[in-house]
Amino acid sequence: MLIRRAEKMTGQPMQMDGVRDVTMRLLVGREDGAPTFAMRHFTVAPGGHTPRHQHPYEHEVLILRGQARVEEDATHHELRAGDAIFVPPDVVHQFENTGAEPLEFICLVPIQFDCGDGTCRPTPGS
Amino acid sequence: MLIRRAEKMTGQPMQMDGVRDVTMRLLVGREDGAPTFAMRHFTVAPGGHTPRHQHPYEHEVLILRGQARVEEDATHHELRAGDAIFVPPDVVHQFENTGAEPLEFICLVPIQFDCGDGTCRPTPGS
Repeated sequence: MLIRRAEKMTGQPMQMDGVRDVTMRLLVGREDGAPTFAMRHFTVAPGGHTPRHQHPYEHEVLILRGQARVEEDATHHELRAGDAIFVPPDVVHQFENTGAEPLEFICLVPIQFDCGDGTCRPTPGS
Repeated sequence: MLIRRAEKMTGQPMQMDGVRDVTMRLLVGREDGAPTFAMRHFTVAPGGHTPRHQHPYEHEVLILRGQARVEEDATHHELRAGDAIFVPPDVVHQFENTGAEPLEFICLVPIQFDCGDGTCRPTPGS
């Protein structure tokens, strides 16, 4: 059994095109022996955002603190602590901090995804 | 994209041997199209607990509110809001509310598990 607290971990700045002021902490990942999915903790500074992108695997998100807006294709949804969000594979999405305080959420991903050609690759950040 | 709040959902009492005062809300599950894993929200009343059991699939848990103790085989760990817990497959475990307020946590499971004979079954509560 593994027990971790995000606040005691050193965050890694998210390095990806289109990211602004996002830090990630891998709470449970592949290297911990997670067989199926990984739990990541994200902190987004006011005005910051994740990349606007899509990928062939899902997200399951829970907002922990702060105010957010998520883009889903051309529409937006306002989010706050307690909201759970399922982003299916291949849906364009972006999470943005619209508040004055840090936005915190967890985002879970499968540890691998099907590349569409019968092979699987490790999911980035898992 | 699916957005849900646990507090707006009707909870289902957890029906299982060894459970006391536990309510579940399925935030994201198989019937929502989740392809790999499911996010469930649990509320445990003071003095309540999940069953002491083991199964051939993992849990990834995040404590949201309250005080908990988790049993891992013969040892115990004290938990509070912000703790992430990885329970690997086949580890005996039990979550207990040790505080005076409701305990809330999310617990994620794979949507299916290998029965060990080459077949897979849907994970209960996914």
